[in-house]
Amino acid sequence: MTDDRITFHYAPQTRAFGTRVLLEELGVPYDLHVMDTRAGDQLKPDYLAVNPMGKVPAISHRGSVVTEQAAVALYLGDLFPETGLAPALDDPRRGSYLRWMVFYGSSFEPALVDHAMKRPPLPRSTAPYADYETVVATVNEQVRRAAPFWLGERFTVADVLWGSALFWVTNFGIFEKTPEVAAYIERVISRPAFRKAQADEAALIAARDAAA
Amino acid sequence: MTDDRITFHYAPQTRAFGTRVLLEELGVPYDLHVMDTRAGDQLKPDYLAVNPMGKVPAISHRGSVVTEQAAVALYLGDLFPETGLAPALDDPRRGSYLRWMVFYGSSFEPALVDHAMKRPPLPRSTAPYADYETVVATVNEQVRRAAPFWLGERFTVADVLWGSALFWVTNFGIFEKTPEVAAYIERVISRPAFRKAQADEAALIAARDAAA
Ligand SMILES: N[C@@H](CCC(=O)N[C@@H](CS)C(=O)NCC(=O)O)C(=O)O
Ligand SMILES: N[C@@H](CCC(=O)N[C@@H](CS)C(=O)NCC(=O)O)C(=O)O
Repeated sequence: MTDDRITFHYAPQTRAFGTRVLLEELGVPYDLHVMDTRAGDQLKPDYLAVNPMGKVPAISHRGSVVTEQAAVALYLGDLFPETGLAPALDDPRRGSYLRWMVFYGSSFEPALVDHAMKRPPLPRSTAPYADYETVVATVNEQVRRAAPFWLGERFTVADVLWGSALFWVTNFGIFEKTPEVAAYIERVISRPAFRKAQADEAALIAARDAAA
Repeated sequence: MTDDRITFHYAPQTRAFGTRVLLEELGVPYDLHVMDTRAGDQLKPDYLAVNPMGKVPAISHRGSVVTEQAAVALYLGDLFPETGLAPALDDPRRGSYLRWMVFYGSSFEPALVDHAMKRPPLPRSTAPYADYETVVATVNEQVRRAAPFWLGERFTVADVLWGSALFWVTNFGIFEKTPEVAAYIERVISRPAFRKAQADEAALIAARDAAA
């Protein structure tokens, strides 16, 4: 393993799934470091030295650690410009790309967590995201406007993040599966990379359960 | 006003302050679009067409809109490589840069909002950020390790985001001002860009209050 290899800190059935899909979309080699969150692997000292939050995904590459789903995705997209999956710095879509990548963790997830936990709504001015209904409407509007993909005609890293996220949150029943949202999810999850990540995860879980 | 000008959607005494500091650090021209959040300017149809969340900061540039504090900062940093304020794509600090820029909105702010609102703590596995204490310890550790600046020797866009944020949250009493944190904040706010943004904001508020 050279320093140039990507080590991917992963655990099945977590937010790290989207990163696995991305690595498959990019078609690049990586070393998989599998943890079992049910066994608390992510809270052991070895991993806390990588990410003190004890969260996945994270990657180690060329001596640095990148944590936070959207940061990992931004980093990997830019690392492989030849794949064309990330709008380049001078691409007119770059601003929109950064907007939606950051919006995911700083507005969408907080809104969904508050909603899923049935917390009393924050005063609008305190919430980083306005309110749940506005977030839902905004995401639906983007799906409608941007079809077929998040940033328009071409599939990008933003679709890996948003397609995987919408897949999970609609399945968990914390985000409504409107026909447009369902069609968008289908466009992302029907791709070979998503299917491969799913099959690999299923095999891993089956092997773990057989060993238990 | 050509399309290449940056329009900066701003309101005094908000998260848009950090963006103003950044524009001063970059030393680039911009058109200031001032709103008064107390008068609800950010919820008027004109601005909701820019950002449906009705939040600042946002910028409009070359026909795109960028919202979310960290996304605006990432975009502006990359737009002016000659300033050296953003680690370039091939800079060894790039991964760490992205990590901390995204961590700000997807872990730090949610932890601080939950803490400030005295909400019952989320189960560790549900919270995107582990827990408040871990976030506080991690930020302190980064300040200690990275001194003098967030990513080491050189001042970067990450310092504008983190320095401004820590300035506010310690003033609001929702984040402890340890000696290291205090010294770090001082290094950022003593710079001419921060002082200019503060003076400009004070002048704007004085003019508004005199007119009222
Ligand atoms: N803010 C982080 C959140 C990551 C996260 O919460 N991951 C969960 C799995 S979905 C995790 O690692 N949980 C293990 C634990 O909290 O102990 C990100 O965007 O990557
Ligand atoms: N997630 C956003 C949050 C921005 C935000 O909440 N801005 C506040 C001011 S600090 C705002 O615009 N408030 C006006 C309102 O909510 O009506 C970001 O990171 O930029």
